[in-house]
Amino acid sequence: MTRILVIGAAGMIGCKLSERLAKEGASEVILHDVVAAKPPAGLKATVVVSDLSAPGAAEKLLVGRPEVIFHLAAIVSGEAEADFEKGYRINLDGTRLLFEAIRKTGDGYKPRVIFTSSIAVFGAPFPDAIDDEYLSAPLTSYGTQKAIGELLLSDYSRRGFLEGIGIRLPTICVRPGKPNLAASGFFSGIIREPLAGEAAVLPVPRSVRHWFASPRAATGFLMHAMRIDTAKLGARRNLTMPGISATVGEQIEALRRVAGDEVAQRIREAPDPTIQRIVAGWPQNFAPQRALALGFRADASFEQIIRIHIEDELDQRTLRPRPDRA
Amino acid sequence: MTRILVIGAAGMIGCKLSERLAKEGASEVILHDVVAAKPPAGLKATVVVSDLSAPGAAEKLLVGRPEVIFHLAAIVSGEAEADFEKGYRINLDGTRLLFEAIRKTGDGYKPRVIFTSSIAVFGAPFPDAIDDEYLSAPLTSYGTQKAIGELLLSDYSRRGFLEGIGIRLPTICVRPGKPNLAASGFFSGIIREPLAGEAAVLPVPRSVRHWFASPRAATGFLMHAMRIDTAKLGARRNLTMPGISATVGEQIEALRRVAGDEVAQRIREAPDPTIQRIVAGWPQNFAPQRALALGFRADASFEQIIRIHIEDELDQRTLRPRPDRA
Repeated sequence: MTRILVIGAAGMIGCKLSERLAKEGASEVILHDVVAAKPPAGLKATVVVSDLSAPGAAEKLLVGRPEVIFHLAAIVSGEAEADFEKGYRINLDGTRLLFEAIRKTGDGYKPRVIFTSSIAVFGAPFPDAIDDEYLSAPLTSYGTQKAIGELLLSDYSRRGFLEGIGIRLPTICVRPGKPNLAASGFFSGIIREPLAGEAAVLPVPRSVRHWFASPRAATGFLMHAMRIDTAKLGARRNLTMPGISATVGEQIEALRRVAGDEVAQRIREAPDPTIQRIVAGWPQNFAPQRALALGFRADASFEQIIRIHIEDELDQRTLRPRPDRA
Repeated sequence: MTRILVIGAAGMIGCKLSERLAKEGASEVILHDVVAAKPPAGLKATVVVSDLSAPGAAEKLLVGRPEVIFHLAAIVSGEAEADFEKGYRINLDGTRLLFEAIRKTGDGYKPRVIFTSSIAVFGAPFPDAIDDEYLSAPLTSYGTQKAIGELLLSDYSRRGFLEGIGIRLPTICVRPGKPNLAASGFFSGIIREPLAGEAAVLPVPRSVRHWFASPRAATGFLMHAMRIDTAKLGARRNLTMPGISATVGEQIEALRRVAGDEVAQRIREAPDPTIQRIVAGWPQNFAPQRALALGFRADASFEQIIRIHIEDELDQRTLRPRPDRA
């Protein structure tokens, strides 16, 4: 059985991935984060708490020589913009310290490293659909840090120190639980809150278009990245994941079709110029040919994205958040 | 008069830039390198020797608050590939320490930082001509380090810490003096050595195409970057410079036209599979529309590139290297 290390295991994607690993019978798993991750039912996991950017932390995580490393840990976009030094320390230095610890292990150690990047590596102006050869010109410090992580991942792979795959995740929607500090929070909020019987605020016009994947699709990308033949990647180790391109108006119409008028009417428009300005720099649509050719699969529609949220997060009878969910 | 700091002043481009600054009457200049730079005749300059990657070195260079900083220092491609740690220490950490020292100066200090990047940020496969929106997918550690420097330059500019311009230099041809450790050395060698009466080795087929600028054109790019209105750059602070796209065969024909058959016959073909493999990953041609629109100007032809070498480096009577040249 494969030895797996999940860095950033207490985050939303980390939790979803842990559940998926449990389902698929993983047995030797280390769940690492700066706070204690809770292993899901059925997963025998070692929980490690440390700061990846602290000296020696990465080395300790590698003592058991994990064969697969999911590196999901990151300071999110809003916080990395608000705290310049913290963003660079965790997102850049943390990633580099991990890669360096792997390199210095030597002795033929060459784990598969699955690095979650983001469509934030792209910045406006954009073509109608961003293809696999479009430049990374991020407009946030978070996007810059992820773009640097991607470059390091490719170089460390090329030099033979690790077997890297960078997974550029779409904006995850519907994010379960409480909002985080990401400026993209409302894309999930306008679905999640109305479904839970609460009012939601929409800070941007309905014409705003963006690129989405469900948590289930995102977990699927990571599991697929663990298994594909990386020789097919060549020197370009970072892949834009497939997703659903939808406008806010299309999101709301999908919500209406799935859950009815009453639910959709819980969205209140409250224009926020700051959020509008940030979102205007974000990508809207992609042509992720390489990932599709490698077998990565998106959700079928935005309606399906909403249905996945209902199936995975809500009590099927009351449509209220399930008590076992945060 | 402007206070100017040149980091990497002892290198070839640093020397050429210093001569140009002298010609244009610069007076408050600091020439920094890891070895003592020699100020050209007529330039009153302070010479500083230190390792940019050592703690505190960058801060010391900023004591006089230079208004313009040329950051030319780098471990070249061959050496950065041979010595992984040294390349990252100088090319990545050195650059980041400089940017951090600028940021931490605070108090409204916001110098113009002209960072020499390289077409090594691009890696094959390529389109026929690489435009300004093509991705950076370097195939060397040097190219990776330069691409990371570019990302940092854009982010530190966006955050208002400095006013950055990244200048992606073509391969400099004809490089005067002795060959350095760059794998691209032969592109200059096959012109420089025959002109000096010596044999030159050609390790690649004549069909190999590449992208060139003379040292004089490169210096012109840097001087222009010191003066342009950076507001026109927007968020994308890194520019591919214009150049001359020529095959090795076209280089040799130009040499024949400028200097005659006898000189061109001093080139001996000695195929080198290692160099051929490295060069196969290098870009051949660009469409640098942004730099052209901003007024950056290339050489007129490869013949002119050869004539510039003869004018600037050789004794006009004997066509031997001038005694004042290295």
